[in-house]
Amino acid sequence: MEKSDSYAILDINICDKDSAQADNNHNKKKTSLTTVIKIQRERGERDYIGFATLPEQVHRKSVKRGFDFTLMVVGESGLGKSTLINSLFLGDLYKNRKISDVQDRIEKTTTIEKKTMEIEERGVKLRLTIVDTPGFGDAINCEDSWRVCSAYVDEQFRQYFTDESGLNRRHMQDNRVHCCLYFVPPWAHSLRQVDLEMMRRLHRKVNIVVVIAKADSLTAAEVKRLKTRILNDLEEHQIQVYQFPECDSDEDEEFKQQDRELKAAAPFAVVSSDTVLEVGGKRVRGRQYPWGIVDVENPRHSDFTKLRTMLISTHMQDLKDVTQDVHYENFRAQCISQISQHAMRERGKLKRDSMGNNTDVVFTDTDRLLLQKDEEDYLGPHTTYAGHVNSNARKTQSFR
Amino acid sequence: MEKSDSYAILDINICDKDSAQADNNHNKKKTSLTTVIKIQRERGERDYIGFATLPEQVHRKSVKRGFDFTLMVVGESGLGKSTLINSLFLGDLYKNRKISDVQDRIEKTTTIEKKTMEIEERGVKLRLTIVDTPGFGDAINCEDSWRVCSAYVDEQFRQYFTDESGLNRRHMQDNRVHCCLYFVPPWAHSLRQVDLEMMRRLHRKVNIVVVIAKADSLTAAEVKRLKTRILNDLEEHQIQVYQFPECDSDEDEEFKQQDRELKAAAPFAVVSSDTVLEVGGKRVRGRQYPWGIVDVENPRHSDFTKLRTMLISTHMQDLKDVTQDVHYENFRAQCISQISQHAMRERGKLKRDSMGNNTDVVFTDTDRLLLQKDEEDYLGPHTTYAGHVNSNARKTQSFR
Repeated sequence: MEKSDSYAILDINICDKDSAQADNNHNKKKTSLTTVIKIQRERGERDYIGFATLPEQVHRKSVKRGFDFTLMVVGESGLGKSTLINSLFLGDLYKNRKISDVQDRIEKTTTIEKKTMEIEERGVKLRLTIVDTPGFGDAINCEDSWRVCSAYVDEQFRQYFTDESGLNRRHMQDNRVHCCLYFVPPWAHSLRQVDLEMMRRLHRKVNIVVVIAKADSLTAAEVKRLKTRILNDLEEHQIQVYQFPECDSDEDEEFKQQDRELKAAAPFAVVSSDTVLEVGGKRVRGRQYPWGIVDVENPRHSDFTKLRTMLISTHMQDLKDVTQDVHYENFRAQCISQISQHAMRERGKLKRDSMGNNTDVVFTDTDRLLLQKDEEDYLGPHTTYAGHVNSNARKTQSFR
Repeated sequence: MEKSDSYAILDINICDKDSAQADNNHNKKKTSLTTVIKIQRERGERDYIGFATLPEQVHRKSVKRGFDFTLMVVGESGLGKSTLINSLFLGDLYKNRKISDVQDRIEKTTTIEKKTMEIEERGVKLRLTIVDTPGFGDAINCEDSWRVCSAYVDEQFRQYFTDESGLNRRHMQDNRVHCCLYFVPPWAHSLRQVDLEMMRRLHRKVNIVVVIAKADSLTAAEVKRLKTRILNDLEEHQIQVYQFPECDSDEDEEFKQQDRELKAAAPFAVVSSDTVLEVGGKRVRGRQYPWGIVDVENPRHSDFTKLRTMLISTHMQDLKDVTQDVHYENFRAQCISQISQHAMRERGKLKRDSMGNNTDVVFTDTDRLLLQKDEEDYLGPHTTYAGHVNSNARKTQSFR
């Protein structure tokens, strides 16, 4: 087969200037497929191709398919984890909850409790899974809690890896943990040893978002001080919590402003409430004290609204993408490395008739990549995939 | 680790009735992220969660990433393939083309000519690759042409499979052929033996869209007759060309009407032209005959506009999805099956110390799936993956 790869890299920009200006913020002028096509037709200029509808096509498909998201909540009991989840997703996930007595709490180990709900908003379907960790931090030995959480995250990755490597990938379900809300008590002076140890075990596996719980027990100055200390601790101990991506320079000013506010607010100091109060004719979720009412959605009272905006309205997809592109890819690379090392050891046990019997291999490239067992024929005896993986892991760690 | 999987499948529909009605055709009311959030905020009802922006988030990300699309054009010389591509994408991809003389055309075999251009429309970037097959059908033995086209498609699949199985998947490029425009000459009475043989080799690998070339040499009645015959031939010979997906019942009437028209038009009878003529003060791409002017974009004159709408504005993403979900998955399944068979043969050559030495395997599940070499330990000696693959291939074939 003769083959001439004559790449003609042309840059045809067929936007006329006006529409290029107008469409610079393409997100502001979103129209339906038919409308786009009609507009183009009516222009009569015949200088369009039509692929400007591609994001629309993707948009429609995503709505048809629906979304899924898995959120893990980690923190000791009594910090309002369940209330926050109920407030965020307007559900009543923990209606029939029984508070276990102290003896149970001490004796039992950390468990994983998974709840899934299918919710719909403006025609968009979301399969939301909340992974709760009752018993976390209640026992005397915290090592157990760390192990359980970390193992759960790994298990979901491994399941995904198995599914992805399997033959039939049609009905793959994504149960990977896309975000971990880590609850810090308001009475802590900063991150405690137990928090740091836990985060150290999780931060390379999952997007951690730190939340200061029950922040209505802190004054504004105290909140500010605690936030600064937490940020310092994270930096000092090189814990990499979820990093907001850079805001595009072509976004509108309003969006940029909101983005700046979200970034500045982390770690989010939240107040949550299951109680709806009536304040000046308006119904608000709040907490009534003798000295006043805390309105959880009032940005002057707490960061609840900011947390909700970030977690759900603006960065949910990014949390999923980082999980896929960074955390999962790191897991996958390590997995392949371990498999290949194991395979080499296994092979070492087998006697081989001759070294040259691989000349009739049909899928050389594929074979080499998929079946890491053949590796030793290509790599020197001291070159393993491990080195490769590590440098790769570092690279992907910072990939967004 | 104790684990209680208490799935609470709730169906919280938080749409109020009015907005549910209004948003039923969510595609009609597309707004930016900030606008959506603002609307929700202004409602003041506090009965929203905020994930209705998820399709928006996907939309934005897709625009940032950009799109790619690969189109293969197949048909003998002189049928206006290059002119059609130029008309579709408003390019001049074949400016410096030299028509080779007959001796060259007879002697040389079919070649693959790949051209890539990066184009932008309304802020949307598309990396478009056109795969041309000069020399196709010019030689006396057509077998060669089939082989070259089919091998090219396979090669792209194999490359993707290799990349997907590799360690670093960050910069994967998708060069898979997403659509093949197959040109039938207007003077044919129907599909010829050569067309059927070619399509038989391609239809399970790539989305075929049949095009009747140079349709201005046919009267309306002749076009109709030829279309019917082609459709009959395809059915009789069980050639499955690209099937338009079902139109959603909740689409607006205008879209449904357009969808019906597109479906009814296939196979598309096209006229294309590089020449811009002035007709009644309007500039049109057309062909001037003594008896009148053919306006290629006039739907009464040809199906050019319908082809463009389908290929680019409405179904480009679906062509990519079918390539990924059906054709590529079939290829991948066959590949794994062949690798596993090869591996079994290879293993047969190796002497094994004992059969039970796999008890210390670390990644049992993964191992089994990824390293198909271990298969023989789990499957009976006569059970190969091939049977599995075939039934799977049939299933995925019809999957949309």
